[in-house]
Amino acid sequence: MNQLQKLLNEMGIVRQNSPGLFTLTPLGVRSLEKLVKIVDDELKYVGCQKLQLPILTAGNLWKTTGRWESTGSELLTIKDRHARDYVLSPTHEEAITDFVASLPQLTHKQLPLKLYQITSKFRDEIKPRFGLLRGREFTMKDLYTFDKTVEAAHETYDLICTAYNRIFQRLNVPFVKVVGSTGNIGGLSSHEYHFPSSIGEDDLKICSACNSGSNAEIATTDVCSKCGSPVKQTKGIEVAHTFLLGTKYSQILNALFSAEDGSRSVCQMGCYGIGISRILAASVEVLGTDSEIRWPKLIAPYSVCVVAPKGGSKEESAIQLAHFLANQIDQIQPFMQDVILDDRMTTTVGKKLMEAKRVGYPYIIVVGKKSSQPVPLVELHDLNQNTQNVYTVAELFDYLKQTVKN
Amino acid sequence: MNQLQKLLNEMGIVRQNSPGLFTLTPLGVRSLEKLVKIVDDELKYVGCQKLQLPILTAGNLWKTTGRWESTGSELLTIKDRHARDYVLSPTHEEAITDFVASLPQLTHKQLPLKLYQITSKFRDEIKPRFGLLRGREFTMKDLYTFDKTVEAAHETYDLICTAYNRIFQRLNVPFVKVVGSTGNIGGLSSHEYHFPSSIGEDDLKICSACNSGSNAEIATTDVCSKCGSPVKQTKGIEVAHTFLLGTKYSQILNALFSAEDGSRSVCQMGCYGIGISRILAASVEVLGTDSEIRWPKLIAPYSVCVVAPKGGSKEESAIQLAHFLANQIDQIQPFMQDVILDDRMTTTVGKKLMEAKRVGYPYIIVVGKKSSQPVPLVELHDLNQNTQNVYTVAELFDYLKQTVKN
Repeated sequence: MNQLQKLLNEMGIVRQNSPGLFTLTPLGVRSLEKLVKIVDDELKYVGCQKLQLPILTAGNLWKTTGRWESTGSELLTIKDRHARDYVLSPTHEEAITDFVASLPQLTHKQLPLKLYQITSKFRDEIKPRFGLLRGREFTMKDLYTFDKTVEAAHETYDLICTAYNRIFQRLNVPFVKVVGSTGNIGGLSSHEYHFPSSIGEDDLKICSACNSGSNAEIATTDVCSKCGSPVKQTKGIEVAHTFLLGTKYSQILNALFSAEDGSRSVCQMGCYGIGISRILAASVEVLGTDSEIRWPKLIAPYSVCVVAPKGGSKEESAIQLAHFLANQIDQIQPFMQDVILDDRMTTTVGKKLMEAKRVGYPYIIVVGKKSSQPVPLVELHDLNQNTQNVYTVAELFDYLKQTVKN
Repeated sequence: MNQLQKLLNEMGIVRQNSPGLFTLTPLGVRSLEKLVKIVDDELKYVGCQKLQLPILTAGNLWKTTGRWESTGSELLTIKDRHARDYVLSPTHEEAITDFVASLPQLTHKQLPLKLYQITSKFRDEIKPRFGLLRGREFTMKDLYTFDKTVEAAHETYDLICTAYNRIFQRLNVPFVKVVGSTGNIGGLSSHEYHFPSSIGEDDLKICSACNSGSNAEIATTDVCSKCGSPVKQTKGIEVAHTFLLGTKYSQILNALFSAEDGSRSVCQMGCYGIGISRILAASVEVLGTDSEIRWPKLIAPYSVCVVAPKGGSKEESAIQLAHFLANQIDQIQPFMQDVILDDRMTTTVGKKLMEAKRVGYPYIIVVGKKSSQPVPLVELHDLNQNTQNVYTVAELFDYLKQTVKN
């Protein structure tokens, strides 16, 4: 159980430092770490391993693949004191391929390799906008896979997509998966995951019958290529992208393995991104209302906020009840270390409730006027259900335990 | 329970990409994340809150404090497409002070603020050396505190030092705390935490009687300033540093709060670093032997490695026993998700044992020749105790459960 001292609510989730550069506040970091855990769990479930590549990648590697030139002015580069070039990496195909090329005795028995990291990435946007949605420094999960054949690479690609589906299903934000362009990353084929939203920057064409679709960049007709039904156009916020790369990077950077016949063969690669900090912003954009933030329950900064009465007010005797509730709810397994108590003594219940809604705690419990009665009553605001009810303490616990099961 | 496929051992813990730039392998990331959890736990225990500042700090802030000039050529800087200057931050006094200055209504009731992050930092070393010990990109924990008076800042400083002591006690690596120089960070006073080691780059003077000491940079005499006893000189690897800053940054960057009398006052600051990636390297440097890595138990990549027999060998019938053991040990609470099974079919037990020792798993269980007997016996190598014993399965479990209690 944590106490909401130290102006946590007032700090909000994120604050801008410079154009496109943001501080994640303590509440923002809690959400980020919850999302990271979901991604870690689902990727490890399909056999991925987490590593950490340097943020700085040697410029020579990017020159070798041609991306030093082709990426254009969004690429942030730096010279060290010895005048050697480095990239502030926006993505790590070069670095990871060079890493795998350096493994001394890679054999077909050790493939597929599925290596990922969750780190800060950089892109010098000409006009950073929409906060975390298009910043210049952002947290991204990038996964790279290495297979022995094209067929095996396809299987790995499909496996990773099942993990992506599970991640977005767990977040419980509506999403679509569409065929995407391979762009500057390159490769054989790609898919994008979008949260449909009117503020999305991508135009998508989605079949009205079978729900398959494409980014409008690459869709040429208005009938579905799979079932022939008419497609409808919608806007989306891209939150993930997968690429079947083939040998574009592994060939040129010599990521080789010993095949069954003893020959040295080139790895078949895939790469897969998830915009971690972007998902935080996109989720509340899609789910929120004008006056309230709504989080996917699993990544709200805290699941439960208990609002205690103001000190010295008539309800002061209920302050102990607020502490009791916060402590008891913190004992319910899924809410453990996930309850925050707003016991600021000089702030009114009304102001604390308004702030709590603005942060978007999924369950806000107000211990107020009716809590000093012989049978104390508390208000429960369930933001995701958009309900507000008055409960006895026993009813409140029943509600919370029930909601956990759903 | 995890399987040691995919050449984990061969990758090692860390691999160099460019001079002073390193990839943490999947084993290295596991150690890193364990250490991060210890630091998170102990800092949150003393009321610290975690945030995430951008890696890029506006150059203007560093020009305002004078450190743009004073830091010298170790400072990595970059210009964006609009020719604005940024620092690849080696530390974040400017960024955090500017952040706190931006909080609209900071009052004395909200102090102390204790804000920290664990992120990548940069320093353009002229000669990167000793691997992670002196890299150009490294993972550091940096904490900043804001208090209303000098006395309160001293109390906060002492409180943070208790957390540091607990962190290093839990790691169980011998350490000393000495008075340090304030250097380019500045401030009123500072302390350093060192792991004593012959390869350390710092000379320390430690009292032979009362164990207090100083960095030799600032020690002027050979008798202890506290008790008058003779001091002995030793070398140390600096793993943490604390500074009582006063108002050096808060004054110039306007980090103010409303005092009890309503006036606007300047925050009293402290800053506190822990070299996270450096601790990984320094720990194994201090604890290891020529042929074996030794980890502090709490941050070994996996606590237990079960070595299964080679496929097709005489012990093949014992392969099932190895799987059984790995699964069962994984059910013992402190070893949960912390057991790795080396069931590579084409590698001999001898080679697997050698590799496991080189990685430094604290408990290595070899299921070999004696495991196919009517009462199977297994070998337990306890690296930290430097023992090797043959046990029945029941004895093995007793040993592991007992060791957990200690």
